[in-house]
Amino acid sequence: MAMSQFKQLRRSYGFDEVAIVPGDITTNPDQTNIDFKIENFTFSIPIIASAMDAVTDVNFATLMSQVGGLAVLNLEGIQTRYDNPQEILTEITQVSDAEITPLLQKVYSQPIKGNLIGERIQAIKQSGAVCAVSVAPANTKRLAPITAEAGADILVVQSTVTSARHISKSYRGLIFPELRKSIPMPIIVGNCVSYSACFELLGTGISGVLVGVGPGAACTTREVLGVGVPQITATIDCAAARDKYLGESGRYVPIITDGGFRKGGDLCKALAAGADAVMLGSIFAQAKEAPGLGYHWGMSHPHPALPRGTRIKVGTKGTLEQILFGPASVTDGSQNLIGAIRTAMGICGVLTIQEMHKAEMVIAPAITTEGKSWQLSAT
Amino acid sequence: MAMSQFKQLRRSYGFDEVAIVPGDITTNPDQTNIDFKIENFTFSIPIIASAMDAVTDVNFATLMSQVGGLAVLNLEGIQTRYDNPQEILTEITQVSDAEITPLLQKVYSQPIKGNLIGERIQAIKQSGAVCAVSVAPANTKRLAPITAEAGADILVVQSTVTSARHISKSYRGLIFPELRKSIPMPIIVGNCVSYSACFELLGTGISGVLVGVGPGAACTTREVLGVGVPQITATIDCAAARDKYLGESGRYVPIITDGGFRKGGDLCKALAAGADAVMLGSIFAQAKEAPGLGYHWGMSHPHPALPRGTRIKVGTKGTLEQILFGPASVTDGSQNLIGAIRTAMGICGVLTIQEMHKAEMVIAPAITTEGKSWQLSAT
Amino acid sequence: MAMSQFKQLRRSYGFDEVAIVPGDITTNPDQTNIDFKIENFTFSIPIIASAMDAVTDVNFATLMSQVGGLAVLNLEGIQTRYDNPQEILTEITQVSDAEITPLLQKVYSQPIKGNLIGERIQAIKQSGAVCAVSVAPANTKRLAPITAEAGADILVVQSTVTSARHISKSYRGLIFPELRKSIPMPIIVGNCVSYSACFELLGTGISGVLVGVGPGAACTTREVLGVGVPQITATIDCAAARDKYLGESGRYVPIITDGGFRKGGDLCKALAAGADAVMLGSIFAQAKEAPGLGYHWGMSHPHPALPRGTRIKVGTKGTLEQILFGPASVTDGSQNLIGAIRTAMGICGVLTIQEMHKAEMVIAPAITTEGKSWQLSAT
Amino acid sequence: MAMSQFKQLRRSYGFDEVAIVPGDITTNPDQTNIDFKIENFTFSIPIIASAMDAVTDVNFATLMSQVGGLAVLNLEGIQTRYDNPQEILTEITQVSDAEITPLLQKVYSQPIKGNLIGERIQAIKQSGAVCAVSVAPANTKRLAPITAEAGADILVVQSTVTSARHISKSYRGLIFPELRKSIPMPIIVGNCVSYSACFELLGTGISGVLVGVGPGAACTTREVLGVGVPQITATIDCAAARDKYLGESGRYVPIITDGGFRKGGDLCKALAAGADAVMLGSIFAQAKEAPGLGYHWGMSHPHPALPRGTRIKVGTKGTLEQILFGPASVTDGSQNLIGAIRTAMGICGVLTIQEMHKAEMVIAPAITTEGKSWQLSAT
Repeated sequence: MAMSQFKQLRRSYGFDEVAIVPGDITTNPDQTNIDFKIENFTFSIPIIASAMDAVTDVNFATLMSQVGGLAVLNLEGIQTRYDNPQEILTEITQVSDAEITPLLQKVYSQPIKGNLIGERIQAIKQSGAVCAVSVAPANTKRLAPITAEAGADILVVQSTVTSARHISKSYRGLIFPELRKSIPMPIIVGNCVSYSACFELLGTGISGVLVGVGPGAACTTREVLGVGVPQITATIDCAAARDKYLGESGRYVPIITDGGFRKGGDLCKALAAGADAVMLGSIFAQAKEAPGLGYHWGMSHPHPALPRGTRIKVGTKGTLEQILFGPASVTDGSQNLIGAIRTAMGICGVLTIQEMHKAEMVIAPAITTEGKSWQLSAT
Repeated sequence: MAMSQFKQLRRSYGFDEVAIVPGDITTNPDQTNIDFKIENFTFSIPIIASAMDAVTDVNFATLMSQVGGLAVLNLEGIQTRYDNPQEILTEITQVSDAEITPLLQKVYSQPIKGNLIGERIQAIKQSGAVCAVSVAPANTKRLAPITAEAGADILVVQSTVTSARHISKSYRGLIFPELRKSIPMPIIVGNCVSYSACFELLGTGISGVLVGVGPGAACTTREVLGVGVPQITATIDCAAARDKYLGESGRYVPIITDGGFRKGGDLCKALAAGADAVMLGSIFAQAKEAPGLGYHWGMSHPHPALPRGTRIKVGTKGTLEQILFGPASVTDGSQNLIGAIRTAMGICGVLTIQEMHKAEMVIAPAITTEGKSWQLSAT
Repeated sequence: MAMSQFKQLRRSYGFDEVAIVPGDITTNPDQTNIDFKIENFTFSIPIIASAMDAVTDVNFATLMSQVGGLAVLNLEGIQTRYDNPQEILTEITQVSDAEITPLLQKVYSQPIKGNLIGERIQAIKQSGAVCAVSVAPANTKRLAPITAEAGADILVVQSTVTSARHISKSYRGLIFPELRKSIPMPIIVGNCVSYSACFELLGTGISGVLVGVGPGAACTTREVLGVGVPQITATIDCAAARDKYLGESGRYVPIITDGGFRKGGDLCKALAAGADAVMLGSIFAQAKEAPGLGYHWGMSHPHPALPRGTRIKVGTKGTLEQILFGPASVTDGSQNLIGAIRTAMGICGVLTIQEMHKAEMVIAPAITTEGKSWQLSAT
Repeated sequence: MAMSQFKQLRRSYGFDEVAIVPGDITTNPDQTNIDFKIENFTFSIPIIASAMDAVTDVNFATLMSQVGGLAVLNLEGIQTRYDNPQEILTEITQVSDAEITPLLQKVYSQPIKGNLIGERIQAIKQSGAVCAVSVAPANTKRLAPITAEAGADILVVQSTVTSARHISKSYRGLIFPELRKSIPMPIIVGNCVSYSACFELLGTGISGVLVGVGPGAACTTREVLGVGVPQITATIDCAAARDKYLGESGRYVPIITDGGFRKGGDLCKALAAGADAVMLGSIFAQAKEAPGLGYHWGMSHPHPALPRGTRIKVGTKGTLEQILFGPASVTDGSQNLIGAIRTAMGICGVLTIQEMHKAEMVIAPAITTEGKSWQLSAT
């Protein structure tokens, strides 16, 4: 029996296992351009706040738009199930670890209110922000028309794994080309992690792809289901699909690495791996303005039969402004994310994110700490 | 001297080092079929409770059959050495760590009672369950006829490593084709871990193979003997032997990955690596109905001269029903194992376990935790 | 799409992941020659003290010269911003962890005093030492003439990453061939980590290259920017560039591995990887004579908007003499660094550092501690 | 520049990174033959006690011979420097960690007494044991004739690294063919770790090779000098040299893996990697009869200028008899080492150590603990 008949396993890599190699030339960070485009929308920073209840509410979406980015409101979360979300959010941060999963299962079993969907979207639009909202594939046919009518700008169709073809005997799966025709706005779909799945999704005519299965800080998909691909490999593979699709169709569709980021260096690595933008959850849950009050939990956590997630205490590290633009008063990579991206681009000698995709990277495990094991100072 | 004359080492992988890649399409988990067959017996779930004294007694075997699975009763353990096993089991859970190995050596040095073998088998049969029992190779010739006569349905011949040919000057080893002719029931043999050993075992006409040497939670074979192969590689290799044997003989013989499982994701990975079913020890020792009272110990632990094992406190995590079918109220992958298998199959876009064997996997070390190092919540 | 169109990642290695293989012959350590040359300057030990404020002041530069090595004074640090540096150094060691980054940002925002540059250089020269000083690329055109006039012997142009070509629309980058013509002294440039960047730097006519981005004990560049290459791979790559440049130009330009060293074994590994000398920060900050008073901090730590570094308490381990030449009274590799280099060379059967470059090395992760997990003794 | 001009690093492996694969057949452990030969001496177990002061004295050498093995007395240690070694040994176990290195440096600076060499050798001979003694290469010309005259049976010439050719301008290195002619006994030389160095040593006509640089529990050579090769790779390489030399010369010279062993499984792995025997230090320091009183320290620890080692508290685990032959009352692999070797050979289906050299091995990192992270039991 030839060796090739044994199942082959490819090595994959996460943020902590790689590093970016400086370029042969260097550039002035102040002159880098980090614009990011979704069809006709252009954002001045390549960062999106994720559709998680501890991260995005109307207020946070407004703030993100003001600083040049984007936030996605979850239309199937607390904001559309409760007239007064604040009360529920407070309760979530106060119960004990033993009580949290049953509580989340209960909280998310309340019905979604159609009128709240409209109200939230209109509130975001009234602030002048670009309004992006997310729905699960199973609910898209029902909710997409409502979001279009309410004036949303971008629709995100998101579940743990979303594919171009869903097979079921009992219902007809979502058909993206049909959806695209029925609503007049860009559609971002996710999540996916492989070259072939991403390539097939791109072929359905969508406007963006979310990359990442299992990496999030508040997610236990890999423990519960064994499924997931570390983010650097997932990004490299999906970037290859994007480039292949560009070559065949002439259409450049951005890929957005979603989840697993802990510090500025991780964002730089995702961009060097091929991402056009990044979607952040836990990092933004640390903002003073985030609705999670210093806590964060995953959106597959409340599943009624197979919950996957943990509630984590992320704390509050600074304002959104400080997290994005600094100046940093700490040195752990949690502040001035945009400064970090521009500086890394300068070190790599590139001026745009698409040039950054060509930066060299090496596998360099974090456990090789080389001198990092000295005692930290204490007075 | 050519480099090939140096001993070559192949890299092997365990559960924590791999992950499953989502498919290009997805399927509805509710429509997956997870049947598992041993000759004419069909089970509706691909899960077997192992022949360990902390896991399987008459009651547990009955329950496993009722939920669609199978349990194996160890015919050389406490259940057949003691009229009142409960007393002994309680003692095992109460002695100190320093006393446990000598106690187990003493407990398992008592003689096996022929009448108890018959009684236990009949009790299982009377409950309506499929009755599977295990014996060591050295005792098989003596005990197999007794089990057949008592009405057992499936015989498991199991030791740390069982091969198709055992060489000894002082006695004649067990010959499986002879054994198969002498008793009228399916024979499952184990354990093995390599392509060639598994292929040779299959050629003896047996009905199933147990895969796994050294991975069990309560086993120290790798420390004491240096012997063992991590479960993903062992499963991939034995699955290749099964497929090769199928091609040559036309007979499909299931392989069962035995030991080392800690959470739902591990089961999904074993199936994706090629297993037809999984055999669980520690996970079932955590069931409210398990005879181990929250403790677990390995079956090579009581060896009189070279004990290999540890007693571990696994705790009690829920009923058997909850462990297998949920709904889960925790998110660590210890509940709703069947839900996890079906969901993972849906994400991989497959409908049967044999299709699941073709799911792509990547090497993705668990130490790449990507964001998992946040502080867990505490109120 | 061919596999080669996916971004490829090369594996890189740090000090803790490799080991030196003994030679087929052995030599007498006492007869090894460890001279190191920068143009016309010859040093009897291949060790340079880094341009960090916790390491090098006038006194330390004098001592290093007396023992046969070299120290580099940072012309943009505390020594040239304050008439009385001692006061500031003391304050840095006394504030709490929460206060340190803002304090350093404030301390390093004070102006550099031109008269202090002259005074410090002259004090070093008056002691009879070789005087090496460092400046950042952006300030080199302004400060280089002053250092030349004040009598400095060697100029070090150093930043996190320095390349042969810096692209900016708003100013004209530093041109090394022009700089070399304008001042009559050897120029050492850094830091770089790749073959191509190093090769290009060598082509500008400089006299030495510093190798290392991100490895320092007090540096968090990899966390904040994601940029860095572990030191063994960086040294191997830059050594290949040096050898290639030697072949083309006939000029041998030394490369100096800078940062990440914790013990004697690390120095030996850098030399075996191809370094002509090493530059030490944290290890010298542990000397009784170091200005850091038992603390150490990185030179990119005080960045006003994107600080990268930590203050670490390194403690005081012995005199400079003892650290370099022993006799050691401890066995952790922190004393008698020169003895360690000579002994390792003897074990490898070599007599010069250039022969040491040919010593065989293996990848041998430190986590394979083989017996190192015994309990350390305690009385 | 071709990639091959960059320094290449080969991956090496230690005990904890590999595992033995069971064979396709199995054999009866009771029928295995584990004899080990050094020229005309045959030992019934392939285990040698190392020439370390915490392990071997006259009494321990006697006991090892009685159980079928061998022990080596260090002729340059405490036994030959002190009339009453017991006093010194007690002092070593009583000082604090801070005092131990200076104390050992002092203890080992006392002169070796010629009369004690004779006395110790004769005491061992009078017990009926085979007498093996060790000397450093630098002292061999002086001490070898004394040992021969006193009646020693086997001479071990041992230092951290010993090569076939030592280069020095000030003295003439040891020439093994000359030494062999001058004394009438087998010579074992060590240590070495590479194919070429081992092959060259074998060509000098010696009778055995010790394999291992840096692995010992009480050794810090890798930290201090950066030198060392993990034991599995070192053993595989030296076994290849042995086999090559056998093919060319017709002479089979055993290789002995020396150091780094912690448990029975490690011994089995060394034999499977190609070792003819193993030399144990720390494991025997744990014997009730060992002179180290529960402590252990390395023989390069007392070096006057560059000490390399740690004193470790190994504790007392049982009698020598119990450690070697059991029955074991613990399950961590520290007892019944011979039982472990025979059982592993049975699982691999082999009958002699030379057959064991052909057992398959896989790379299987210990960090893949598969289920080993359960809470250990506690009552």
